[in-house]
Amino acid sequence: MTDDLDLRAFIRDIPDFPKPGIVFKDITPLLLDARAYDHAVGALAEYARPLDVDVVLAAEARGFIVGGALARELGAGFAPARKRGKLPSETISAEYVLEYATDVLELHADALAGGARVLVHDDLLATGGTTRATIELIERLGGTVVGCAYLIELAFLGGRRSLGGYDVHALVAYDEE
Amino acid sequence: MTDDLDLRAFIRDIPDFPKPGIVFKDITPLLLDARAYDHAVGALAEYARPLDVDVVLAAEARGFIVGGALARELGAGFAPARKRGKLPSETISAEYVLEYATDVLELHADALAGGARVLVHDDLLATGGTTRATIELIERLGGTVVGCAYLIELAFLGGRRSLGGYDVHALVAYDEE
Repeated sequence: MTDDLDLRAFIRDIPDFPKPGIVFKDITPLLLDARAYDHAVGALAEYARPLDVDVVLAAEARGFIVGGALARELGAGFAPARKRGKLPSETISAEYVLEYATDVLELHADALAGGARVLVHDDLLATGGTTRATIELIERLGGTVVGCAYLIELAFLGGRRSLGGYDVHALVAYDEE
Repeated sequence: MTDDLDLRAFIRDIPDFPKPGIVFKDITPLLLDARAYDHAVGALAEYARPLDVDVVLAAEARGFIVGGALARELGAGFAPARKRGKLPSETISAEYVLEYATDVLELHADALAGGARVLVHDDLLATGGTTRATIELIERLGGTVVGCAYLIELAFLGGRRSLGGYDVHALVAYDEE
């Protein structure tokens, strides 16, 4: 019924954010439109349903929104990966590289039962750095990454290639900046 | 079917987080358990459905998780309120008071069509400071706050009283620290 809905129409370019020269893909119009939002979550769930997901795992903060909805649609649990110091119980952590610095992502040490089947979600796949750190944390806890699901892929940044061996799915791909 | 499920069993106390003397209510076990998570979102939706919600609005970051799921369950859109500098387009902002400092919450200036019926969500109602700032932003944009829905209420902190006049609902209330 909504299969003809073009999600691109609900993603807007914000030039020079967060800094000069960067064009930011803003998904807030997509989230705000009930029909587009429902469609996006449904389409990611359609991809993920055959993967038999136990837990959807997303990094803060934008990934929490669709990640939370996707977990419920799949009948799965949800686990948050957060920046340093935000998770209250015992954590494990992984560093990842940003353009000019490194950052740290943490996961609760008891976030995954051994062997849990985990779907990684984020709103955007860029270079893949956040996802690689997330996968490292999941695998250190004995979880199995069954797929990586995004609203948007910036294909020209090569993130998918850097995740070789993992199943990657994005609803909307941009081939150039 | 899951009406007998006790959500309290999935909320754990973390002493001395984020600082000595504070007992933090950790909802990550609730999120991780597919049945408890589904139950919690369903129970909040049951409260909110008669309110005819157009948009669920939540402040970052924990509020995004259940907020995202709740919006979809209600057939509503979702709008994020974020800390300073995180939203990419034009914003309006409100200050709110923390224990020893003030912080700023921002909302996209085009986040609400005039007259939108808005449900405020957060994981936890404490003193109500974040919710009051959120309501201020919604009303400045011409939205109508139809209710405020939480997983947890720390009733001894008086947040509900400070939101007098607004409809407040929480799934689990703690009467003492």
